[in-house]
Amino acid sequence: MKIITVTGYKGGVAKSTTAIHIATYFSDRGKTILVDGDPNRTALSWAQRGKLPFTVADERQAMKVISGNDYVLIDTPARPNSNDLEELAKGCDLLILPTIPDVVSLEPMLQTAKDLGTANYRALIVIVPPAPSKEGAAMRKELTDNGIPVFKNMIRRSVGFQKAAFDGIPVRDISDSRARNAWLDYQALGNEIKGVFGDE
Amino acid sequence: MKIITVTGYKGGVAKSTTAIHIATYFSDRGKTILVDGDPNRTALSWAQRGKLPFTVADERQAMKVISGNDYVLIDTPARPNSNDLEELAKGCDLLILPTIPDVVSLEPMLQTAKDLGTANYRALIVIVPPAPSKEGAAMRKELTDNGIPVFKNMIRRSVGFQKAAFDGIPVRDISDSRARNAWLDYQALGNEIKGVFGDE
Repeated sequence: MKIITVTGYKGGVAKSTTAIHIATYFSDRGKTILVDGDPNRTALSWAQRGKLPFTVADERQAMKVISGNDYVLIDTPARPNSNDLEELAKGCDLLILPTIPDVVSLEPMLQTAKDLGTANYRALIVIVPPAPSKEGAAMRKELTDNGIPVFKNMIRRSVGFQKAAFDGIPVRDISDSRARNAWLDYQALGNEIKGVFGDE
Repeated sequence: MKIITVTGYKGGVAKSTTAIHIATYFSDRGKTILVDGDPNRTALSWAQRGKLPFTVADERQAMKVISGNDYVLIDTPARPNSNDLEELAKGCDLLILPTIPDVVSLEPMLQTAKDLGTANYRALIVIVPPAPSKEGAAMRKELTDNGIPVFKNMIRRSVGFQKAAFDGIPVRDISDSRARNAWLDYQALGNEIKGVFGDE
């Protein structure tokens, strides 16, 4: 069983969207469950509006349904404190910290990374503006220069995510061509995560 | 795997003490883990001060350590709201609500029971004053008369619990003779829980 925890050191960083789409990726590769620990219950609502290709469980029922799964995605409450982050990291195989590519996000991200020390985590740059904007690449360089492990793949901004949330499905299942890149991005991320686990 | 959740609709009801001693009881009968979900981390601190005969895990690491256990005790945050209670009940085989035998506790307990409806729960009367006080029995009658499922066995007040907490061990392992009744009470409760599970 591989446990992947997605957490945010601030709100508005596509935390639940990221957990949902990584779960979608792994649901093709093994029995997958998403544990919704965010008090907003974004993932549970998403699933209730439509159909997701994996089980979504309320964290208060997680113990009962966790066994037998190959992949467990945990969507945590937003804004944990640094002690929470450390404990969350100990409880999973990989901790993912989505961050948006703006200068305001850099400072808290650096602080978070300091708190995490040598934990098994990766930053993920999300809601990246389309070319010719270079904000995504600039953010990645800043993080890398500061010694923060960051995923090579980034997730581009896409209207597909809103449509997917509205319909209660993954962007993969949106027929709108504008959603195509959104799913390609999470697929590439999924492959990269598999690499982190040494599955490739 | 049997999951027993201990929760409090108010503070000061020996919630963590109850979870620890039920876990002690079941640790003689199978692999047992206590998941500490109380932000005070009472159970974790108890274990760190001494030695408990079962694993105590931080809830943020629970997913990683839960599998392979026969008995899982969950110590929840104090004072969940009624929606929390319902969800907690769905996530376990038995929900235990400790309550002290005083008139102030009766009204919130009745409200809690109404919220829980037909869920798999039992009230447990704790910190019962010694005879000739009849407060414990009176509380049990009140609860029963109001249709609330309540354990036949009650937990008497005992200085043994403070000593056990201080030493980081279960009351079972306290040599002080005054702690003897404390352990007898939890043993009787453990037997009653086994009965609820149909193990007897």
